[in-house]
Amino acid sequence: MTDVTPIRLGMVGGGNDAFIGGVHRIASRIDGRFRLVAGALSSTPEKARASGAALGLDPARTYDDFDAMAAREARLKDGIEAVAIVTPNNVHAAAAMAFLKRGIHVICDKPLTSTLADARKLVKAAERSNALFVLTHNYTGYPLMRQAREMVARGDLGKIRVVQVEYAQDWLTQATTGKQAAWRTDPAQSGAGGSTGDIGTHAFNLASFVTGLELESLSADLQAFVGGRQLDDNAHVMMRFVGGARGMLWCSQVAPGNENALRLRVYGDKGGIDWEQENPNQMWFTPYGEPKRLLTRGGAGSTADAARVTRIPGGHPEGYLEAFATIYNEAAEAIVAHRPGKKTPEAVVYPTISDGLKGMQFVDACVRSSARNAGWVKF
Amino acid sequence: MTDVTPIRLGMVGGGNDAFIGGVHRIASRIDGRFRLVAGALSSTPEKARASGAALGLDPARTYDDFDAMAAREARLKDGIEAVAIVTPNNVHAAAAMAFLKRGIHVICDKPLTSTLADARKLVKAAERSNALFVLTHNYTGYPLMRQAREMVARGDLGKIRVVQVEYAQDWLTQATTGKQAAWRTDPAQSGAGGSTGDIGTHAFNLASFVTGLELESLSADLQAFVGGRQLDDNAHVMMRFVGGARGMLWCSQVAPGNENALRLRVYGDKGGIDWEQENPNQMWFTPYGEPKRLLTRGGAGSTADAARVTRIPGGHPEGYLEAFATIYNEAAEAIVAHRPGKKTPEAVVYPTISDGLKGMQFVDACVRSSARNAGWVKF
Amino acid sequence: MTDVTPIRLGMVGGGNDAFIGGVHRIASRIDGRFRLVAGALSSTPEKARASGAALGLDPARTYDDFDAMAAREARLKDGIEAVAIVTPNNVHAAAAMAFLKRGIHVICDKPLTSTLADARKLVKAAERSNALFVLTHNYTGYPLMRQAREMVARGDLGKIRVVQVEYAQDWLTQATTGKQAAWRTDPAQSGAGGSTGDIGTHAFNLASFVTGLELESLSADLQAFVGGRQLDDNAHVMMRFVGGARGMLWCSQVAPGNENALRLRVYGDKGGIDWEQENPNQMWFTPYGEPKRLLTRGGAGSTADAARVTRIPGGHPEGYLEAFATIYNEAAEAIVAHRPGKKTPEAVVYPTISDGLKGMQFVDACVRSSARNAGWVKF
Amino acid sequence: MTDVTPIRLGMVGGGNDAFIGGVHRIASRIDGRFRLVAGALSSTPEKARASGAALGLDPARTYDDFDAMAAREARLKDGIEAVAIVTPNNVHAAAAMAFLKRGIHVICDKPLTSTLADARKLVKAAERSNALFVLTHNYTGYPLMRQAREMVARGDLGKIRVVQVEYAQDWLTQATTGKQAAWRTDPAQSGAGGSTGDIGTHAFNLASFVTGLELESLSADLQAFVGGRQLDDNAHVMMRFVGGARGMLWCSQVAPGNENALRLRVYGDKGGIDWEQENPNQMWFTPYGEPKRLLTRGGAGSTADAARVTRIPGGHPEGYLEAFATIYNEAAEAIVAHRPGKKTPEAVVYPTISDGLKGMQFVDACVRSSARNAGWVKF
Repeated sequence: MTDVTPIRLGMVGGGNDAFIGGVHRIASRIDGRFRLVAGALSSTPEKARASGAALGLDPARTYDDFDAMAAREARLKDGIEAVAIVTPNNVHAAAAMAFLKRGIHVICDKPLTSTLADARKLVKAAERSNALFVLTHNYTGYPLMRQAREMVARGDLGKIRVVQVEYAQDWLTQATTGKQAAWRTDPAQSGAGGSTGDIGTHAFNLASFVTGLELESLSADLQAFVGGRQLDDNAHVMMRFVGGARGMLWCSQVAPGNENALRLRVYGDKGGIDWEQENPNQMWFTPYGEPKRLLTRGGAGSTADAARVTRIPGGHPEGYLEAFATIYNEAAEAIVAHRPGKKTPEAVVYPTISDGLKGMQFVDACVRSSARNAGWVKF
Repeated sequence: MTDVTPIRLGMVGGGNDAFIGGVHRIASRIDGRFRLVAGALSSTPEKARASGAALGLDPARTYDDFDAMAAREARLKDGIEAVAIVTPNNVHAAAAMAFLKRGIHVICDKPLTSTLADARKLVKAAERSNALFVLTHNYTGYPLMRQAREMVARGDLGKIRVVQVEYAQDWLTQATTGKQAAWRTDPAQSGAGGSTGDIGTHAFNLASFVTGLELESLSADLQAFVGGRQLDDNAHVMMRFVGGARGMLWCSQVAPGNENALRLRVYGDKGGIDWEQENPNQMWFTPYGEPKRLLTRGGAGSTADAARVTRIPGGHPEGYLEAFATIYNEAAEAIVAHRPGKKTPEAVVYPTISDGLKGMQFVDACVRSSARNAGWVKF
Repeated sequence: MTDVTPIRLGMVGGGNDAFIGGVHRIASRIDGRFRLVAGALSSTPEKARASGAALGLDPARTYDDFDAMAAREARLKDGIEAVAIVTPNNVHAAAAMAFLKRGIHVICDKPLTSTLADARKLVKAAERSNALFVLTHNYTGYPLMRQAREMVARGDLGKIRVVQVEYAQDWLTQATTGKQAAWRTDPAQSGAGGSTGDIGTHAFNLASFVTGLELESLSADLQAFVGGRQLDDNAHVMMRFVGGARGMLWCSQVAPGNENALRLRVYGDKGGIDWEQENPNQMWFTPYGEPKRLLTRGGAGSTADAARVTRIPGGHPEGYLEAFATIYNEAAEAIVAHRPGKKTPEAVVYPTISDGLKGMQFVDACVRSSARNAGWVKF
Repeated sequence: MTDVTPIRLGMVGGGNDAFIGGVHRIASRIDGRFRLVAGALSSTPEKARASGAALGLDPARTYDDFDAMAAREARLKDGIEAVAIVTPNNVHAAAAMAFLKRGIHVICDKPLTSTLADARKLVKAAERSNALFVLTHNYTGYPLMRQAREMVARGDLGKIRVVQVEYAQDWLTQATTGKQAAWRTDPAQSGAGGSTGDIGTHAFNLASFVTGLELESLSADLQAFVGGRQLDDNAHVMMRFVGGARGMLWCSQVAPGNENALRLRVYGDKGGIDWEQENPNQMWFTPYGEPKRLLTRGGAGSTADAARVTRIPGGHPEGYLEAFATIYNEAAEAIVAHRPGKKTPEAVVYPTISDGLKGMQFVDACVRSSARNAGWVKF
């Protein structure tokens, strides 16, 4: 029988006015596998404490910084087993390493780090650690993306030829000053990629996840359309995959009319699929020469991999938070197996540090290609 | 500052192979306001215990029946403050009364009861009790339904003339034997209404919630298309509202191609809205004579009432579970206020026992009208 | 080989500022089977002549009234073979009879007449005549409606249980004074039905056409929401068909956000279809228990009846005018066969005077039922 | 008053089993401005005659080749005023020149020619001729594309930054042998571009038409996925426009699930639009920071340029044939003005030979760029 003792979770970042911290907390609660018991919720001690109180954390376990938290929690008998890292990108590496070296599992937001060098260091730290590392490329948690992956793998689409992936938003269309915008457009906190780092990595990760294709090289044309912006806010990328498939990736944060429009289309010699994140409970599948079919999460034709991460019947929409929670749930499966020293069950799927490194390489390749007039860069 | 101590929750029904019990549990967890600590999860003691163990409940608080649970929990210092009732309809009344008379708040699934007589008894019991009664007409928890209600109330649509509401499913298209189908098509457990009780009450409740209209009379033509079925599986209803508005309601569980297709359209002399539950993050709004606008949850034009129950930004879809959680969250707001004896805050909105009674009256009126060749029945 | 000599066509009504006259003219041209050579285009002689000149008609064949036209054209060696009648409803009967009695084929706009009595007279006149009578219930010309009919007939949906048909517009939401609105809301010109006559007849005809079901009885609740309006602008109708199927029909001209939203849904025990006129090149088909399929005009799965009236490949949208032209083309097939005295080819399908009579009976039944508090009226 | 005498039209190509010839004929008839009176309908004399008879052409004006037709018709008193050229690409130039040099107006299908050299020759021939040259980039005939162009021009979108245009089909997903496929995949008849020539030119033309942007350079990655295919069947193109806007163009004929999926999205600093050809009566427009609006052809917010080419009210869908007919109608406006020697009226808009040359340059640039590993090619 499954061990249902909740996993003791800590959090780094995610103070009162953060966006993604709140998402991680909800995600950790949905399936009841985690209990948040400690936090270093802000780089400002006062805010850290206030945020902890608002969440009902024990003041003794509300820390001023992640190092103190890692050190003390590692010594507690009922210290945290896992930590969620939800800070700006440039803090990920140091924070993650503090916990990894103490054997505390890490659930880290994406992109992996702010620099490729940091990413490589972190990979090494993870290799040295016995703890698990889970990266929240949350879109891979959508049941229909699991299904798409299974359909590609079993040949429903035939040999893959063309990948069209795009991720469009409009919230940075004009110069903006909010906290969310501020750190995301600051190279010191975000890294070398703007839209490429923030959302392009999601698009690239999802395309890779579903198709299983390895990128061979890319050609990228990056733009910063808003005056004074230091990082790209729009990017056009052509991709060549190992084995001959080709793709295009468009990411933009300056496309009015798009809230969070991640879309993936994959075409093979036997069929095609088309999925949009904003309406994630539906996916088009067309076997070549037959009528288009609208597959639904939980509906007719659901595959085993999709059913495994589906909570409620078709027509009862699951959303972004459930997909995010699925990553947490997969992490829980692995962590619970790990308690008695067992391996992660085979069915469990989550984005790893290796996916995180690929994301950083993707950003790096985009930036280098664009600097060379969109010349091809090997991946 | 808000009291963040989780509310101690018990559950009646919702054992291992139930659908709606799992939904209630997730809903109770999403916002972190409840902790499930006790249960009488099945009418079969063995299953009740196994289900409790699977949920990690203390065996001492895993009860064989709801009476025992109500009696003992009421005496415990840290006994449950609220109970979720998620059994077949015919058990609701007795279970709810057991807790109400002990001052334990009730969160009850819909429809209120299986008979109108039971509903009336329960209303009296609730009036005698100091405890709160929350009915999970969960579709009223969708942010855009809150917004629609606010828009109607402030006159964006002008005087309401026409209401079109429908709720179509297809899972009972053929004779079926599953547990979910079994009790829903059994008059002894479900009551006099089939599709009218199971989903028609949702449709009626949502239309009433959004428009604020009071039903004056209805004319209903009910059918049981599947051979041997004792309860309606399809219903056509014409409605007349106080003040002159008219409406149609269609509910069906035999409409192939419909998973859970609840749709509400409201038309006034200044504008119209159109919303579909299967894609709940979007709502059409047309001010008469202007282009149609696609309003999004969390997007441009969001109203205060919608924003109040919105967790994440536009384009990051919230779904059925979040809407359900909003009912739980509203219940939490009321319960926490109630701890020190305060009133429910004014902004808090949830379906009450009075809505539950109206739902039962709706089913009763449909059945009576249909028996009289769809003659008009006063409401 | 098909006789490709264009059919000589006359027109009654359809002067300069008319809507439907222009539609008929385009429809008559699309497939090149007709040539407009004569007209009595307006009840105002001056306007009739100006309209004729604008269309390039021979002034000698531009008539001041339909009687003169019928009389003279019947005597000409190259007189018109067919006439299109596109006046307000109250003129249809007299005009049609003038041509029918002279053996000139009639293509008449719907509804058939303004009164049921007129309709019955016209039916008799048509029976006495050797000429053909074609009623332009144009929506039956859409390829996917032909396909739907074929699919129902061959059993793809199983036994039909439920018909949901609606036709919503918003152009009469407020009191209005244009010419199109004026005659349509005037009982003297339109007849007893407002929205029921103008668009309800289309909806009823289309539902009948696709399902092949015969109406047994109906219950109708009609409203005139706009102050001072003499005819219904919104109607709710419940229907019982011979054989046990049931249906609902909603027609409205006061539903903001609807331009010309005719939608037909049909559900049987094996499957369901769903089609919307505003995007007529797509139709949903769900075989029960399988994923929804989006059938396209000209696409995979097209049936013979659809292919027969399809001009261009899938993805190249055909629209309202092509569907209308298909009625004209069917008329042409019949007329050309009739030239040497042959019967209409079996494959040819068009709405007949009998459909027209049923439409008038539908309006009459709606009005009578509504007057009796929506009591059931036999059909 | 407008001269309503129909324009005498001839046709080169378009014999019995052709696709686009039939489209041109319907397009020429819809608005009643042309009458087809002569043809050289096939390169096979027998088929040419049979095709002429099937169309009801005078056998004396059914020619075996276009040269004979041009020569004789030019001498006839009532000879053709205009000719439609609807052959495979490689015949366009010679045919067009035969008519241009005799002062007969040319309406030519796209792409302009099969080689850039031919295109340049044809441009010179057109410059020497007094006759008009109209290229049927038919998608510019859609009312909402006229509206989009007007909206961009008047600044509704602000300064244009990003253009996303795509044109996906699936009919060449597998090796195929039909006549339509045969010539389109044969370099000798089609030219150097496969999908780029057949549909990429449409996409490029439409994007240019709507935005008014001039292409500065492009980088193209072309593929021929189907074994043995000599021309590209999929193309990825990055574009840089004069003034700083950037774009992506994807065209494919191997994307299962796409019938004729031309889509144009344009984003500026004040708003964005999104339009899909398969549902051409709707266009999304989002003013930055406001709700998305669904503009409809003929609906609220229609612009003058759209209204000018709109035949019927909103909700009554116009389609591909009407858009095509609009190009014919624009040609008619110009030709009728030209009869008495007047200039083309200012409001008249149609694709010209200059657009045709740009299309050929686009194909040429794509092919050259792809041959240089997708290096940037100046336009």
